[in-house]
Amino acid sequence: MPATPIYRTAILPAWIDYNGHLRDAYYALILSYASDALMDLVGMDAAYRAATGNTLYTVEMHIHYLHEIHHSDIVMVAARVLGADHKRIHTAFDLSCEGQAAVAATAEFMLLHVHQGDTVSTTPFGPPIAAAIGALAAAGTDAPWPGPGSRRMQLRGR
Amino acid sequence: MPATPIYRTAILPAWIDYNGHLRDAYYALILSYASDALMDLVGMDAAYRAATGNTLYTVEMHIHYLHEIHHSDIVMVAARVLGADHKRIHTAFDLSCEGQAAVAATAEFMLLHVHQGDTVSTTPFGPPIAAAIGALAAAGTDAPWPGPGSRRMQLRGR
Repeated sequence: MPATPIYRTAILPAWIDYNGHLRDAYYALILSYASDALMDLVGMDAAYRAATGNTLYTVEMHIHYLHEIHHSDIVMVAARVLGADHKRIHTAFDLSCEGQAAVAATAEFMLLHVHQGDTVSTTPFGPPIAAAIGALAAAGTDAPWPGPGSRRMQLRGR
Repeated sequence: MPATPIYRTAILPAWIDYNGHLRDAYYALILSYASDALMDLVGMDAAYRAATGNTLYTVEMHIHYLHEIHHSDIVMVAARVLGADHKRIHTAFDLSCEGQAAVAATAEFMLLHVHQGDTVSTTPFGPPIAAAIGALAAAGTDAPWPGPGSRRMQLRGR
């Protein structure tokens, strides 16, 4: 099974910058919404968050921008889980435009499960959520990776 | 000389998510505006872009989220140039809240100089811009790095 289609959106006019294309930060916003959709998918939806006081915090985000996105594009995001432990999910997304073969961006997020009480502290996933995350991780293992993965950023020869 | 203070902003209510703090993507938006401010500083402002058809494209962005930011915070961004070649700038930002010692996020961007004509093609910086970038790079060399730098994302023991 390839990556899981998880989010789809049109491009708002306010997201276009002076270069005439989707501003870098709005790729991040689309990916952030995709991350919310992933939470819904594995059982960490609004009802779960309200009932438990638990949620995910993003601790790291790394995006590779491969192609421009324009106002007329419809963007689709697919997700896969690259790894997980008792309180963290390492997830990857690819972002493409409807009707275009090339992937427009790839991204990785590190997400941390926390409890928001008087203070914020990390907390383990419960068994149903851990199982759902594990199922997604297993589903993604044979999918080819469509672009550059996270790596140390540096000037490379070109 | 430490990193160059480059951008300052209040937090808009719409930037706060269901966790009660600044959504991950809006750190990216603040950093994107800081990147625009860096362009202004080295001579790639709106007048330059209009006159030449040249601009910067973000090709990579990597953010480490270290502390939450809330609606009442005033965010300040400092920039440094980690490296550059004839058409690329590798820049780092740190983001902190007024009155708080801890850095709230660190980030790195790889920015590519392009010409937007009938097609988009990379193009070298002119001498005045290359000199301004070089001056910023030299200014940042003795500043201690306040947080994690870009690296391959992976689950690490904790």
